[in-house]
Amino acid sequence: MDNHPNGRVRARSLGVVVGASPTGPLNAITDVDGVLVGHTTIDDGAGLHTGVTAVVPRQLIAGRRWLPAAVYAGNGYGKLVGSTQVDELGVLESPVVLTATLSVFRAADALLTYLMDRRPDGLSFNPLVGETNDGFLSDIRRRPITGRHVLDALEGASGGLPAEGCVGAGTGTTALGFKAGIGTSSRRQVADGAPVTVGVLVQANFGGVLTVRGVPMPVGELIPGAVRHGQAGGSCMIVVATDAPLDARRLGRLARRAVFAMGRVGASYSHGSGDYAIAFSTAPPRLPPVPDEALNPVFAGVMDAVEEALLNSLFTATTTTGFRGRTSHAVPYDRLPGAAGRTAPA
Amino acid sequence: MDNHPNGRVRARSLGVVVGASPTGPLNAITDVDGVLVGHTTIDDGAGLHTGVTAVVPRQLIAGRRWLPAAVYAGNGYGKLVGSTQVDELGVLESPVVLTATLSVFRAADALLTYLMDRRPDGLSFNPLVGETNDGFLSDIRRRPITGRHVLDALEGASGGLPAEGCVGAGTGTTALGFKAGIGTSSRRQVADGAPVTVGVLVQANFGGVLTVRGVPMPVGELIPGAVRHGQAGGSCMIVVATDAPLDARRLGRLARRAVFAMGRVGASYSHGSGDYAIAFSTAPPRLPPVPDEALNPVFAGVMDAVEEALLNSLFTATTTTGFRGRTSHAVPYDRLPGAAGRTAPA
Amino acid sequence: MDNHPNGRVRARSLGVVVGASPTGPLNAITDVDGVLVGHTTIDDGAGLHTGVTAVVPRQLIAGRRWLPAAVYAGNGYGKLVGSTQVDELGVLESPVVLTATLSVFRAADALLTYLMDRRPDGLSFNPLVGETNDGFLSDIRRRPITGRHVLDALEGASGGLPAEGCVGAGTGTTALGFKAGIGTSSRRQVADGAPVTVGVLVQANFGGVLTVRGVPMPVGELIPGAVRHGQAGGSCMIVVATDAPLDARRLGRLARRAVFAMGRVGASYSHGSGDYAIAFSTAPPRLPPVPDEALNPVFAGVMDAVEEALLNSLFTATTTTGFRGRTSHAVPYDRLPGAAGRTAPA
Amino acid sequence: MDNHPNGRVRARSLGVVVGASPTGPLNAITDVDGVLVGHTTIDDGAGLHTGVTAVVPRQLIAGRRWLPAAVYAGNGYGKLVGSTQVDELGVLESPVVLTATLSVFRAADALLTYLMDRRPDGLSFNPLVGETNDGFLSDIRRRPITGRHVLDALEGASGGLPAEGCVGAGTGTTALGFKAGIGTSSRRQVADGAPVTVGVLVQANFGGVLTVRGVPMPVGELIPGAVRHGQAGGSCMIVVATDAPLDARRLGRLARRAVFAMGRVGASYSHGSGDYAIAFSTAPPRLPPVPDEALNPVFAGVMDAVEEALLNSLFTATTTTGFRGRTSHAVPYDRLPGAAGRTAPA
Repeated sequence: MDNHPNGRVRARSLGVVVGASPTGPLNAITDVDGVLVGHTTIDDGAGLHTGVTAVVPRQLIAGRRWLPAAVYAGNGYGKLVGSTQVDELGVLESPVVLTATLSVFRAADALLTYLMDRRPDGLSFNPLVGETNDGFLSDIRRRPITGRHVLDALEGASGGLPAEGCVGAGTGTTALGFKAGIGTSSRRQVADGAPVTVGVLVQANFGGVLTVRGVPMPVGELIPGAVRHGQAGGSCMIVVATDAPLDARRLGRLARRAVFAMGRVGASYSHGSGDYAIAFSTAPPRLPPVPDEALNPVFAGVMDAVEEALLNSLFTATTTTGFRGRTSHAVPYDRLPGAAGRTAPA
Repeated sequence: MDNHPNGRVRARSLGVVVGASPTGPLNAITDVDGVLVGHTTIDDGAGLHTGVTAVVPRQLIAGRRWLPAAVYAGNGYGKLVGSTQVDELGVLESPVVLTATLSVFRAADALLTYLMDRRPDGLSFNPLVGETNDGFLSDIRRRPITGRHVLDALEGASGGLPAEGCVGAGTGTTALGFKAGIGTSSRRQVADGAPVTVGVLVQANFGGVLTVRGVPMPVGELIPGAVRHGQAGGSCMIVVATDAPLDARRLGRLARRAVFAMGRVGASYSHGSGDYAIAFSTAPPRLPPVPDEALNPVFAGVMDAVEEALLNSLFTATTTTGFRGRTSHAVPYDRLPGAAGRTAPA
Repeated sequence: MDNHPNGRVRARSLGVVVGASPTGPLNAITDVDGVLVGHTTIDDGAGLHTGVTAVVPRQLIAGRRWLPAAVYAGNGYGKLVGSTQVDELGVLESPVVLTATLSVFRAADALLTYLMDRRPDGLSFNPLVGETNDGFLSDIRRRPITGRHVLDALEGASGGLPAEGCVGAGTGTTALGFKAGIGTSSRRQVADGAPVTVGVLVQANFGGVLTVRGVPMPVGELIPGAVRHGQAGGSCMIVVATDAPLDARRLGRLARRAVFAMGRVGASYSHGSGDYAIAFSTAPPRLPPVPDEALNPVFAGVMDAVEEALLNSLFTATTTTGFRGRTSHAVPYDRLPGAAGRTAPA
Repeated sequence: MDNHPNGRVRARSLGVVVGASPTGPLNAITDVDGVLVGHTTIDDGAGLHTGVTAVVPRQLIAGRRWLPAAVYAGNGYGKLVGSTQVDELGVLESPVVLTATLSVFRAADALLTYLMDRRPDGLSFNPLVGETNDGFLSDIRRRPITGRHVLDALEGASGGLPAEGCVGAGTGTTALGFKAGIGTSSRRQVADGAPVTVGVLVQANFGGVLTVRGVPMPVGELIPGAVRHGQAGGSCMIVVATDAPLDARRLGRLARRAVFAMGRVGASYSHGSGDYAIAFSTAPPRLPPVPDEALNPVFAGVMDAVEEALLNSLFTATTTTGFRGRTSHAVPYDRLPGAAGRTAPA
């Protein structure tokens, strides 16, 4: 389950385990009931390394008009489409789509098409689309994302372990000096006496110094000669899903902690990095929400899952050469703390 | 100046004067130094009554990268594109474009094209696009706005008195039971010893009972038999421009008061109405901001200008029959308070 | 019921009716199930005209630890104690106490005593205390409010029609150029098929031009020679109670509209006026909240009740001479619109 | 400089250095021009371990009415007095006082006295007072803080290295399972070509697992048999001062990052922990603010200084037995990473 086709592996396969709580069966956002993930990857081997990732709560395509949701802008340098209405009404009406900065409106328009097709009498829709700037490896000014790309990601969304690393909206992203991409993780917790699952998916593209379980691993030391490019236009988009019954206010508390957890892997929270979290609940409607006093295990699960999802996004990504011949290097496994000399399991 | 080609006139020509402060020369947002307005009107005489309105600060196309700005969501049921970055950085980087709900992302993408063309090396842009639901009179699901429409509004933007009523993004809007559209107004005030101008442009599309200078004028009484349609998906977009030197925090205070002033004309602030204000300052950079203690005249100017711009949006609009044969009636002048029997000046 | 002992009367007795919806039996916040009001009035006939008003939800002293609640700062120039925790947790844990600016912390400490006495094992409490600056008529620097005053207001709180005008926290307040004080009103509405009651209590102390049902009544015209004092340090505290089942997010929507409604009576929303609304629900826990789509009647009820409560605060207040011999005049009934020559009913 | 009278030492004396940037001369918030710190410690050797800490910008007592400021509530479970007005006006009008939860209003009233004494004609003041719940070691229900204690801290404030650990508002606090208290640190950075200093002072009282330079040090492993008490009512108050010219919006960005940095030492950001940061600038008025694009070094300085201040608050605190005989243990130096067997320098 943890081995990706490209030979790269997830954090746990490298002995890097975050926290003591159990993961869900897949250790992925898809462990949360009804949550599907789809990717469209655009990689022309040259200047284009970008794509689309869709997180699709099956509940929204199976009858429910919305799920409780909240958005937190840890650093609002970014173009998150749909946030003010989530703030006002506390609901998610659409799948969450992630893509590249300059393509965000085309993606939003395509997501709108998808929503309109599913509700032919609808006159108002609030698509939620996040973005990050993958311009280091991809020629973002070409705005290569088409409606077809977005619909493919949405319609191809499925359960199971999502592809990670250089796929979908993570095809061209870099983080903490290394090649990064999409990552996911999950946790099982008990809240107010009931089991709950928290799942996280990240699109990692931000600055700082990679820190693995507390050990800083500056790219300049691990990859001699690697050019340390700035992350001026970066972002980290974090999607948090849970089956715990939570209203928008409580989901907002989860979303904040998702951004707080970026610091654990060394995020610098720099000026130009739009760091956002979107949290939603797939619990059936009308269940009473988990009391705030019982949320600590859920908070812990969110933070552990974000940390591990970010590490997964890095460990599963592969060295990539893209726009203008720039290269972003994969994290070398043999330098990981507690994993000296370790190679990827065969 | 106050007579529109369609025979409709502005509030002042009808003897309806809001407040005691003087207006600017045009009584329009274009009285603010550098502010231009452009419209693209789409009216096929049948199901399409919609369009695009652009408010273009000349400063942004003449060298400045941004102007101080703030957004206030009085009621966040709406899809205002670009708001989180304005919140974070306190700046407007682009003209403000207004259009119809389901076309908002196409308009944002076109505005992005416009910005990219003007800054060929740019990798990050934050277009600001507001919308309202003109679906009572226009078939919004056709998403008729093209990039060309947006560019035409931007490139055609000019000084002078902007067209009002059924033009641009106001072609299909209705407010307070009557046909409405685009309206504008301005005020000259003195703040901290210096003259300042405040200009407002509105896209009016919301519910309530028309109230003119305190007198309620329910549509059912003025237009016997008029069908009172709901405004479930409405919105009011308010753009506030000023030449007063103000930072983002202070502009946020102006933006809030712009929304507060909607109540003066009878707005119901209903659930489904996305009521937003965007405020920006065209003052040269590095001027010290007007102290908060000196802002009361500016606040008063904003509120008066919003009230009058809303009245102008109604008084200049004409009876329109659109999508599915629905009709929205113009406000009849002869029922105005203090204007009994008055007809439009020849 | 509408005649106050001082010969002053409420708006309805003067023929001033706001909106078409019915009021509750008392037309007061105490129409909302469980809501009690208590006042302590301090009036030494000279420099002290101040006091304390407490809004006490009986539910909080009869077993419930909290009620859903929200705060909105329309203009945050003010010292509302307790707001950040209400924002975070969405609950009201204490009665709402209103008093004078420089006494707000003493009042908060006294309210804390009250709460500690009722929960001897408690280690954390979040008293909510609002204030306004009644320094035009009262020597606020003397900080005359004692713990005893606060406890008297809390312990003396009762149902029935609360005293209005120059009582409690309204003893020394002025609004729109006239003597004002405490006012209250209520509305019955139907939301989502069920009857709901909305009740409002205001502490009115802000600037602008008195506007009665749309007709401006500048103090300078009504009271020749009246000194128009500034309202630099004013505020309007609005308490909204409802028995509708609403969570914190929805209550926040009510709170915003409460502040929006201040404009109906002519509020200028000036720089120095701290304009806050606090909304809470007394509905039994675990009832599903009223859907947002069904909130319009509740919004309308809030706005009508705020308008009428503000008028009541003015109409029931009496001319007062206070600190440094300053006088604030009562609104003269004979100038009211539609009530020319009317005198207070015998 | 780094040796405290009690034999405890600061992080740097133990070889624990955070980040690569230089500190100010004192490695304290008092490195920022004009910033003074005063403490009043209440320790009766039995049930009372509490106190007051004041951060006094000399500028506010030497002529300036306010400094630009912002507050960020990472977790708003807390009773921060004064926050709404800071949000609205973006200014700090008073010293920042920190104390114990149930004494916060008495402290605010005393700070108000201090402000009133300094401005005899003033009618409006916004004291800023933060609190945390030190009820594990101190009998908070006794509300032991008097006005005299607060005035002593304010009037005794001075430059130089502030006392740290079990002093002032940190006398009774615990964090991450250990005895904690007050800590401080500073950084020198270059922003936009000019040197700037950032200083931090913390009142540490929150849950999680102590993490020193990335290495987790659970209290249960370091202090066998130590009772791990919950931190249900905790809080972390962070004061950030800088001489960089920054407006309120930018200071808000610093304040957020101050809270983000708590994660570096293992904060769990639990439900009951009110985690707040207050940031202000002592730069002379009218200097143009540092551009956002130049803020990254300032952000980094804030985060490094917060991390080190938190470690200082722990390392300088001493084992304390307080209310009900409860004991909170000091961090044992000999278990520190990279400092095995190290004892405090003689």
